[in-house]
Amino acid sequence: MSLKRKDLLSLAPLSVEEITLILDTADSFKEVTGREIKKVPALRGRTVVNLFFEPSTRTRTSFELAAKRLSADVINFSPSSSSVVKGETLLDTARNIEAMQADIIVLRHPSAGAAEALARGVKSSVINAGDGWHEHPTQALLDLYTIRQRGLSFEGLKVAIVGDVAHSRVARSNIYALSKLGAEVRLIGPPTMMPWGVERLGARVYRNLDEGLAGVQVIMMLRLQLERQGRALFPTIREYARLFGLTGERVKLADPGAIVMHPGPINRGVEIAPEVADSLSSVILDQVANGVAVRMGILYLLSGAN
Amino acid sequence: MSLKRKDLLSLAPLSVEEITLILDTADSFKEVTGREIKKVPALRGRTVVNLFFEPSTRTRTSFELAAKRLSADVINFSPSSSSVVKGETLLDTARNIEAMQADIIVLRHPSAGAAEALARGVKSSVINAGDGWHEHPTQALLDLYTIRQRGLSFEGLKVAIVGDVAHSRVARSNIYALSKLGAEVRLIGPPTMMPWGVERLGARVYRNLDEGLAGVQVIMMLRLQLERQGRALFPTIREYARLFGLTGERVKLADPGAIVMHPGPINRGVEIAPEVADSLSSVILDQVANGVAVRMGILYLLSGAN
Amino acid sequence: MSLKRKDLLSLAPLSVEEITLILDTADSFKEVTGREIKKVPALRGRTVVNLFFEPSTRTRTSFELAAKRLSADVINFSPSSSSVVKGETLLDTARNIEAMQADIIVLRHPSAGAAEALARGVKSSVINAGDGWHEHPTQALLDLYTIRQRGLSFEGLKVAIVGDVAHSRVARSNIYALSKLGAEVRLIGPPTMMPWGVERLGARVYRNLDEGLAGVQVIMMLRLQLERQGRALFPTIREYARLFGLTGERVKLADPGAIVMHPGPINRGVEIAPEVADSLSSVILDQVANGVAVRMGILYLLSGAN
Repeated sequence: MSLKRKDLLSLAPLSVEEITLILDTADSFKEVTGREIKKVPALRGRTVVNLFFEPSTRTRTSFELAAKRLSADVINFSPSSSSVVKGETLLDTARNIEAMQADIIVLRHPSAGAAEALARGVKSSVINAGDGWHEHPTQALLDLYTIRQRGLSFEGLKVAIVGDVAHSRVARSNIYALSKLGAEVRLIGPPTMMPWGVERLGARVYRNLDEGLAGVQVIMMLRLQLERQGRALFPTIREYARLFGLTGERVKLADPGAIVMHPGPINRGVEIAPEVADSLSSVILDQVANGVAVRMGILYLLSGAN
Repeated sequence: MSLKRKDLLSLAPLSVEEITLILDTADSFKEVTGREIKKVPALRGRTVVNLFFEPSTRTRTSFELAAKRLSADVINFSPSSSSVVKGETLLDTARNIEAMQADIIVLRHPSAGAAEALARGVKSSVINAGDGWHEHPTQALLDLYTIRQRGLSFEGLKVAIVGDVAHSRVARSNIYALSKLGAEVRLIGPPTMMPWGVERLGARVYRNLDEGLAGVQVIMMLRLQLERQGRALFPTIREYARLFGLTGERVKLADPGAIVMHPGPINRGVEIAPEVADSLSSVILDQVANGVAVRMGILYLLSGAN
Repeated sequence: MSLKRKDLLSLAPLSVEEITLILDTADSFKEVTGREIKKVPALRGRTVVNLFFEPSTRTRTSFELAAKRLSADVINFSPSSSSVVKGETLLDTARNIEAMQADIIVLRHPSAGAAEALARGVKSSVINAGDGWHEHPTQALLDLYTIRQRGLSFEGLKVAIVGDVAHSRVARSNIYALSKLGAEVRLIGPPTMMPWGVERLGARVYRNLDEGLAGVQVIMMLRLQLERQGRALFPTIREYARLFGLTGERVKLADPGAIVMHPGPINRGVEIAPEVADSLSSVILDQVANGVAVRMGILYLLSGAN
C-alpha cells in the first residue's frame, strides 16, 4: 500500500488508513535496530529543501536529520539569506528550487495556506512544516505515533489539549486527526484562546483545567508564546500559570497512567511545572525522538521510493 | 582536453574552445539520464567552500547542489557568522579556509576584483560567483548553455540585453562571451544605466526598447535592483516599467522564435510582465536548471578530477 | 588504548597519556596519505551537532570538516535560528538534540562552565569548543600538535603567551596542558590582562615583552579583541601595539628556531606585524590545518568507534 498523494499539507483530508500507513512506515525505520535509527540508502541522490520563512530549531533539524538518515542531500534556506528580501514571490522562489531538481520541499511559512498554494504551483512534493495558525501535520503525526507507542488505543481515548488552542497549528492538526481516529478531544483554556466552532469537530471546550483533566489518558500542553505577549490574550503570565499551568497535583486528576505531551520548546514554570516535564509521565523527549522517524516515513512515502 | 586554469574568475580571458569545453562538460552530466542529473562520485572526498559576502539564494544553492551531486563535501559560510566581523582581511580568511584543505573556494563579494585578489593568494581553485559590478562568469555560462540548448547558433545571433547594464556583472560577463562567440550584442536602457566604452567590445547601445528588440533571437532582461533605488538612476519604477518593461506586445517585435531570459529573481510587472515570464518563450526556469549542470561542469574541470 | 571519557570539556583533568593519545590519533589521520587528509568511513551513520551560541567561522568550520571527513552527518545550529530566542534553557535545547540521536554535541557558549553543565545532563558526548573565559581545549590540543610536529619536545620547552591572558580561554587551556607536559610557561602582558593566581600553575608573569621573549622556543600571540574594547583594558590600540605587538625585531630575541603561533583571526599591525605573520617562523596556517586532524582524532576517540 502506498500514500497516493504528492504532498502532505494537512491532516484534515487524510483517511485513517493513510495515517496508519505513515505511522507504520515510521515504525519500520525504528525497527531495524530497535531504538536506534540506522542510516539507510533509500533516498540516495534525492534532494530535500528546507524552505523556512520562520525560525525553528526543532522542526528544521528534525527534517534535516530525517533526510540525512535516508541518505538524501539536504539544502537549508531561510528568508534572511534568500532572494525574498529582493521581493520575489513565494511561488517564484519555489519554482526556482524546483528547477534545481528539489524532489521534496519542506515549507514553514507565517501565512495559513502557503503550503497549499505552493503545492499547486510546483511538481515537487511539498510538506507543510507549519503554516501560520493553520496546520502542522508532521507534529500531530509524531504525537499520534508517541501515543500509539505507549500502547494506547485511539478509539475512545480521552485527550486534553491545554492552552492557546486558537493560535496553535499543532492543536488544529491534532484535533482533526484525533477526532477522525475516534478519540474524545477536550480543549482547555481561557475564552480568548479558544477557537470558534470546534464543537462541530466533536471537541468539547473546558474553561477549568481541573475539570477538563478528569480521567484523561493524554494531556497535551501547548506552549504559551511568551514572545507574542503583545497580543495580550491573558493579563499576566503568573496568572496564566496559576490557572492553566500543569503541576504534579493536577496530573493526579487524570487517569493514573496518563501521559504528558508538549510540542516544545517548553516554558518551565509557566505552562508546565519542571517536576512534570521531567517526570515519568512525560513523553516530551520521546516526541522529539519519534519526530525523526515519522518524518523519515513521510519523506520516504512521498518520494515514491517505496 | 582539459581546462588549463586553476580558477574561473572572468569570461574575458577565456577562449572559444574553453567556453565550449565547459558547456560540453555540463552536457555530459545532463546526458547520463536525460533530463535528470544523477549523483556521481567524481568529487568524493573533495571539499568545496561557499564563501558568500553577499546574500544569494539562487547562486549559493545552485553551487551547493552542484557540489553535492558530484559527492563533494560542501561548507557554507557567510560573513555574519564569520570572523569577518572581527576585522580579519579577506585574504587571511581565505588562507584559513585553504589551510583546512578546501579544494575549491566559491566567492561572492561586493568588491570588483575580490576573486582575482583571492586567487593570487591561495592555492585552492577560486570560482568567481559575482564580484561587485565586475563579472559573474558562471551565470553567463549558464545563459550560453541555455541558448545553445535551444538550438541557436552564436555566430551572428542577435542578443538584446535590457536594463541596468552599467551595474550588472551578469551583463558584463555575457557581453564578453557573446562578442567572442560572434553574436551581435545590443544594450538597451536609459543613458544612466549604460556603461562607458562598450562600443569597443562591439556592442551597440539603444535608448528605445522597441527599436532594440527588432529581430533579435534572444532577449536578456536584467533585474531592476529595487533595493538599491536610493541611487536614483530612474525617476520612478512605474516610468521604468512603461519604457523598459518587457510585455507580450513587445516580444512580438523580436524574431518569432525568440527566447526570453532573466537571471532572477524577477520583479513581476516591473522589468518583465507576468504573462511574458510564464510564457512559452521564457526560458527562465531552464536557466536555473542548467545552472546546476554548468556549475557541476566547472567544479569538475577545475578540480582536476578529469 | 582508548580515551575513557564521555566528554572533552577541559584540559585540566587530562593525563599526559590522554593528551598523547589524542595527538597520536590525529597523526594517524594525517599519515594515511602524507599531508592530505582522506575521507574515511569511521563515523558513518553517526551524527555530530555543532551547537554554537557565539559566532565562529574557524572553529565551527574546522569541526564540520573534521566530522565530514569521518563521514558523519553534521547539523549546525546557532542561537539566532533556534528556540533559544523562545526562552528555552540550554539543557532543554540539548536534551532535544540528544533525543534526535546526536552522538556528539560540540558546544560553544559565552558562559564558563556551560559545557560541563551540559555534559552532566545528556548522554551524548560533549566537546567544549569554548566556554566564556574558561577553556578551549581543542584549540590548545592543536597548538600542542603543531609544536610537536615541529620536532620540539615539551619537557623544558620555553613558551611565551602574549596578550590578554586573563580573558583568553585559549591561554587557560594551554597553560594547563603545557605545565603538565613539563614546559616553562611565561605570560606576558599589561597587569590588566593578567589573571590572578597563575603562579600556582607554575607560570611566570612578565610585564615587558622583550624580557619575556628572551630565549623562548614558542611565541603564542593572543588576539586583541578589538570588538570588546569597550572594556578598556588598555588606553589605545596603538599604544598596545607598540608595547606588546610582535615585530620581526622582537622575534630575534627568542631562540633562533622559535616558532610564532596565533589562534586567529589575526589583527595585522596590532598584536602581530604582517612580516611576522607571513614569515617562515609563523606556523599560524599549520595550526589551522592541524585543527581538522586533531578534531578528527577527538571525534573518533569520543565516538567509541575505535
